[in-house]
Amino acid sequence: MNTFWQEFPAIAESLEKVSRIIQDSCASQNPVIAEGVSALFDGKGKLLRPGMLLIAANFGKKQDKHLKLAACLEILHMATLIHDDVIDDSPLRRGVPAAHARFGKRDAVLIGDYLLSRCFLLAAEYTSAANAVNLGKLLSRMCAMEIEQNADRFSSGMNLRRYLKKIMGKSAMLFSLACHVGGSEAKASRQITETLRRTGYNIGMAFQIIDDMLDYSGDAGAVGKPLGNDIKEGFVTLPLICAVMRDTSGMLRSFFSQPSFTVDDPDLIIKLVRENGGIEGARSYAEIYTNRALREIARLPSGAARNMLEKLTITLLRRDR
Amino acid sequence: MNTFWQEFPAIAESLEKVSRIIQDSCASQNPVIAEGVSALFDGKGKLLRPGMLLIAANFGKKQDKHLKLAACLEILHMATLIHDDVIDDSPLRRGVPAAHARFGKRDAVLIGDYLLSRCFLLAAEYTSAANAVNLGKLLSRMCAMEIEQNADRFSSGMNLRRYLKKIMGKSAMLFSLACHVGGSEAKASRQITETLRRTGYNIGMAFQIIDDMLDYSGDAGAVGKPLGNDIKEGFVTLPLICAVMRDTSGMLRSFFSQPSFTVDDPDLIIKLVRENGGIEGARSYAEIYTNRALREIARLPSGAARNMLEKLTITLLRRDR
Repeated sequence: MNTFWQEFPAIAESLEKVSRIIQDSCASQNPVIAEGVSALFDGKGKLLRPGMLLIAANFGKKQDKHLKLAACLEILHMATLIHDDVIDDSPLRRGVPAAHARFGKRDAVLIGDYLLSRCFLLAAEYTSAANAVNLGKLLSRMCAMEIEQNADRFSSGMNLRRYLKKIMGKSAMLFSLACHVGGSEAKASRQITETLRRTGYNIGMAFQIIDDMLDYSGDAGAVGKPLGNDIKEGFVTLPLICAVMRDTSGMLRSFFSQPSFTVDDPDLIIKLVRENGGIEGARSYAEIYTNRALREIARLPSGAARNMLEKLTITLLRRDR
Repeated sequence: MNTFWQEFPAIAESLEKVSRIIQDSCASQNPVIAEGVSALFDGKGKLLRPGMLLIAANFGKKQDKHLKLAACLEILHMATLIHDDVIDDSPLRRGVPAAHARFGKRDAVLIGDYLLSRCFLLAAEYTSAANAVNLGKLLSRMCAMEIEQNADRFSSGMNLRRYLKKIMGKSAMLFSLACHVGGSEAKASRQITETLRRTGYNIGMAFQIIDDMLDYSGDAGAVGKPLGNDIKEGFVTLPLICAVMRDTSGMLRSFFSQPSFTVDDPDLIIKLVRENGGIEGARSYAEIYTNRALREIARLPSGAARNMLEKLTITLLRRDR
């Protein structure tokens, strides 16, 4: 049983099926792929995007294909994570060695490509052409945003506006698509589908902000990867942006006094971000997006699905990993 | 005008349109992607797979969408090349720096993903769901085969059977799909579409064998990348396999006397492969597949399209780059 969804038994049960579909869809006689797939989809992931898709499907006529589409989105998510890890040189993912550390970069790039191919296979088979196109567009946008993010590494020019644009493209759009596809493929009304799309977007923004916050505030053991990973890689995220704005001593500001910066002592930066209210600052933004999501949810037809979405949104804000 | 296709003016003209579709489909406001796309699709590629798709379409009712599908396959091909170059650390591609040497590995992986997303977008929009699924399956297979190939690096266990399986998955299947999609989307008869598929397969096998041969026999300037690239990376290809079989001095055989080998002097291996008939051996296999392709072509309805396919098959066997 997926522990994240334990208070949502119907979704948790469907996600068991989704996990099996993922395993089946990605099965391969190639031992490297087989090992990679079983390591990546080991049942420890939250399956957040698939779960949201399934909740959204309840606003229309939920069908078997929703399970396939839920699998499709998780596979896409995992493919982008593998490629991220390859290029970030991140050693751990969910507490276990990242794919490229297990298989080498060569095979990790290819396992990612393999997963993309499986994702598009499922999309071609089970969505409308319009939603397959949406999926393609989403991936284009995620790539463009990752490239933009790379250009901003170790650059002092990062600011709130750029940060929000970045997390929209690399994260919130996928949540948004999950809710949109869930609703539209269930033939929910156009108005409901649009509301679901906006709900997903706001949940996704809050989710990514919390993720970035946990990289500064979290317990490394619970988060499953080392703290301060972002800043070590030169990525400036919201807690640091907020801390710089609140910094009265000038220590953090001096860090950004040149067009580009180096990170000699990441622990010092983590400490300064914590001391200068970076955590609280980031959390307040997560609350803003959470509240926006809750306002959208309030527009949806009342019932079990709406209650689930509301509860999920609040749970995600409070998570510590 | 595409010089490779200069003797096929109708195809050359259509390929001009395909090039524009590729540029339009892959356009991006992101400067890194925009630069990458214009460098990758600089008009110097042969556009072989798109050209074959367009020839195959002549066996049915050729439509505008064929130009889109031709673009789709070239984009897929280019995406896999970029990822190959990233993982092979190959410095040159078509005589110019490979994407990862221009943009760094981070962005090269992402540009490849971006191209995959554009390829699937075109497939979702312009093919039948069945052919979109075929495209997804093809990419899965290409990835699996590349991973298998990686496992064989610097291993003395490579033999003819494994080699042929490898080039089928990594290369011939894409040629096969190009011909199949061209025919099936033009509503050619099932029999013709199947014959086209087998034709594409055999042309693709011959093409890859010649490619691998040119890595030993070619003129580095004409080929556009350094010679001996495969063996430097530990990939055993057909010229070496053939040379080992014909080696009377035992020098090449001693190279493979251990389960794995190292490459201290690639130039010596190139010399030994040439001296021991590796080039001629590989060429004889290319001729076998070329003849198989010609036999399939002879089954197709006579006319301009069949003549083009025949001429192309012979031209490809004779190429020196």
